[in-house]
Amino acid sequence: MGKYIYGIDLGGTTVKMGLFNGEGEILDKWEIVTRKEDSGSHILPDIADSIKQKNNEKNISTGDITGIGIGIPGPITEDGRVLKCANLGWGIFSVADELSRLTDVGNIKAGNDANVAALGEQWCGGGRGFDSIVMVTLGTGVGGGVIQNGRIITGANGAAGEIGHLKVNTGETCTCGCGGKGCLEQYSSATAIMRHARELVSETEEESYMRQFPKEKITGKEIFDAYKADDGLAKQVVAKFAKYLGLGLSHVAAVVDTQAFVIGGGVSKNGQVVIDVIREEYEKNVMFALKGKEFRLAELGNDAGMYGAVRMVLD
Amino acid sequence: MGKYIYGIDLGGTTVKMGLFNGEGEILDKWEIVTRKEDSGSHILPDIADSIKQKNNEKNISTGDITGIGIGIPGPITEDGRVLKCANLGWGIFSVADELSRLTDVGNIKAGNDANVAALGEQWCGGGRGFDSIVMVTLGTGVGGGVIQNGRIITGANGAAGEIGHLKVNTGETCTCGCGGKGCLEQYSSATAIMRHARELVSETEEESYMRQFPKEKITGKEIFDAYKADDGLAKQVVAKFAKYLGLGLSHVAAVVDTQAFVIGGGVSKNGQVVIDVIREEYEKNVMFALKGKEFRLAELGNDAGMYGAVRMVLD
Repeated sequence: MGKYIYGIDLGGTTVKMGLFNGEGEILDKWEIVTRKEDSGSHILPDIADSIKQKNNEKNISTGDITGIGIGIPGPITEDGRVLKCANLGWGIFSVADELSRLTDVGNIKAGNDANVAALGEQWCGGGRGFDSIVMVTLGTGVGGGVIQNGRIITGANGAAGEIGHLKVNTGETCTCGCGGKGCLEQYSSATAIMRHARELVSETEEESYMRQFPKEKITGKEIFDAYKADDGLAKQVVAKFAKYLGLGLSHVAAVVDTQAFVIGGGVSKNGQVVIDVIREEYEKNVMFALKGKEFRLAELGNDAGMYGAVRMVLD
Repeated sequence: MGKYIYGIDLGGTTVKMGLFNGEGEILDKWEIVTRKEDSGSHILPDIADSIKQKNNEKNISTGDITGIGIGIPGPITEDGRVLKCANLGWGIFSVADELSRLTDVGNIKAGNDANVAALGEQWCGGGRGFDSIVMVTLGTGVGGGVIQNGRIITGANGAAGEIGHLKVNTGETCTCGCGGKGCLEQYSSATAIMRHARELVSETEEESYMRQFPKEKITGKEIFDAYKADDGLAKQVVAKFAKYLGLGLSHVAAVVDTQAFVIGGGVSKNGQVVIDVIREEYEKNVMFALKGKEFRLAELGNDAGMYGAVRMVLD
């Protein structure tokens, strides 16, 4: 077994890279730019070059490398084939094979970024101590990852854990980015709660803590600060956020009966109050046998993907 | 490795027992009565006695037995601990340990009956050829079992696959058997469609094929026969059945991205039409990445549990 593992989180803007030892402890981390031009054809060569540079810097030979793990922002099969990744310009090909060819490292593990981050949180973050968690990332959209007995559930087309597109409101008339209507992320993403709060501020006269900010500066923080101060408009926003998220997580529990939900992404930075409002709605909706699940805040932030990528290699 | 495996499906009325060879082929099957009196304390001894009798009959020694698998009608952990099984009168104890003590067979595998039946269908029935299926049993209630890469997903408290209690209608005012409101099984079980059909026949004047039967004889068969004949009332019943089931299965897909749904239980005996109506609603509700899943009819009927029990031993 080699002495080093690279953990890589490939995002639409930057690639987060980490060098870990064989025990999975981080030794170094850095970022490179994600060059999306030319159908994303520079991305993997850039990553391979950065690994070679780090090898030179640290006197690491290829034989010292146990493996490379990488998280990709799109659906990917268990054997590492990307099934199209629109925001990188990628079509269908094997990331694992290609990265192996470019680096001369045989053991490459690739996974969807949300799933890999979930694995990182289960291993070293908010899900520590549980074998099975579901991670929920509340950011631009609502992402999810299902970890069962320490392993990612990938699904037939790499779309397991797509909980942002649970149809939680069959009466919705507005369309989600996915083309559907009534998806969870239309109500519970950071984007959704900001939009809702800004609408309420525009369309009502009601006094609100949030009115002291220019409308475009009202984000999750201002909303949850206002909520904690018992602000009427913020309560409406948080109620809708929690109602649909609690319902959606009750669906998740009925399918996999997870041990714990780990809540991450920008919205989760508002702390325990986020957990409290989600849990209350979860308990209202879920069947008796699934009540009382643990809810935890994510802990690794942007490093979760690197950790999860390394965990795939160690598995 | 021994030459024989016992596969047992423990139900509330009868225990279905099967003797299989080491390749998982069935050699013999029979039933015994489930004696629920005295807090179900006779059930496992009766099963052990029946196994011993069969061993004598076939000249099988304990050393020839690879293992015993058993499906239980209640929540059970991965290591075989029953967490209360109200309809057998059981509290909390290890079925695996107890059955091992009674039979002198070390290798005992126990699982929830719906999950074990799902494994049987994946191995030898409607799910043959797929690694990952979700089985949906449309009977008195709506049961479910999630098989991922050939293994049961049990969940933290043995409640994974409890899809009958997905809350698919937040506007419901009637209460489900579980105490919740708006559970899938309130709309899509055999019980639910019979109730709905009988109500429509009582409460409307509309002509219907179903009126030729005494109300208490209107079951899934009469409903689907009427549906195929373009009967207005039957169409209402089937529409509601399919609407909620399609929605519920879209939730299931978003969590585990299964390869195929296998539809079993009494309602599934009405054949391809059942698949067709469910699939139509599924496709309406599910996100693009999860469209086009396979839907199959279950094939093993009441034997699914025995097969799944044996599969657990072979794993």
